[in-house]
Amino acid sequence: MNEFMKVAIDEARKGILAGDGGPFGSVIVKDGVIIGKGHNHVVSRNDPTCHGEIDAIRNACKNINSFDLSGADVYTTGEPCPMCLGAILWANINKIYYGCSIKENDSIGFRDEIFYKNLSISTKKMKDRIIQIDHEECKELFKEYAELNNKTSY
Amino acid sequence: MNEFMKVAIDEARKGILAGDGGPFGSVIVKDGVIIGKGHNHVVSRNDPTCHGEIDAIRNACKNINSFDLSGADVYTTGEPCPMCLGAILWANINKIYYGCSIKENDSIGFRDEIFYKNLSISTKKMKDRIIQIDHEECKELFKEYAELNNKTSY
Repeated sequence: MNEFMKVAIDEARKGILAGDGGPFGSVIVKDGVIIGKGHNHVVSRNDPTCHGEIDAIRNACKNINSFDLSGADVYTTGEPCPMCLGAILWANINKIYYGCSIKENDSIGFRDEIFYKNLSISTKKMKDRIIQIDHEECKELFKEYAELNNKTSY
Repeated sequence: MNEFMKVAIDEARKGILAGDGGPFGSVIVKDGVIIGKGHNHVVSRNDPTCHGEIDAIRNACKNINSFDLSGADVYTTGEPCPMCLGAILWANINKIYYGCSIKENDSIGFRDEIFYKNLSISTKKMKDRIIQIDHEECKELFKEYAELNNKTSY
């Protein structure tokens, strides 16, 4: 599997085992090097904006001391929600490699699909920038999350 | 003018004079009481995700020790970008009172309108929740920002 997606899955798994939030880990890569990573901390930080992608963007920006991630790509276990799509655009990230789809987020209890509908979002114009990879490995991660007990929903 | 929008404008003005970022301040209100506020810090914190709305949501969540702002409204100087619309949905905020429009964000150098088009966003389904108020006062704030020298664009 893709080496960067493997790191994103490891980040996500660390997060769900710690009770930080959903099974969402993200890695920011520039010129073949990881410049930032993060995972969902909505529950542990009481921060509804701390999705994996946003945590990773903030980490990468801190590491390179810039608000501009031009030339970087993101690898993320779940297809980004509207908030994270917006964050990716503001950060000037180029390509989005994701594992599980928005519909699969829904199947494990997250509201992304409803929010896509609320805002009538279509990512058709960005189709060359949003690419699904390593679906099976990310499905396995989602299954691990679904089977955990005592989860806090958000 | 609306007392909460006045606080949002004061937040935004504080931010632009400090060089923190764009003229965007936000206030979270629940049961008639301000529970959080914030302003854009994209430049000063090198954080492309730190828009006024997100800064205010994070502040409110910290103050009430929860990731759930159900029953709260947001007052914000500029119509929210796609990222902030998503953040508002995740935080379960009800109504969005804004001053200047997405088109006016564009006129002072911000890319919100392009991002709405990238994602084909329409807020029609949320029209009962997105309400423009105090336009003139927010236009004055935007004008102050436009006239500032030595701004950092993002």
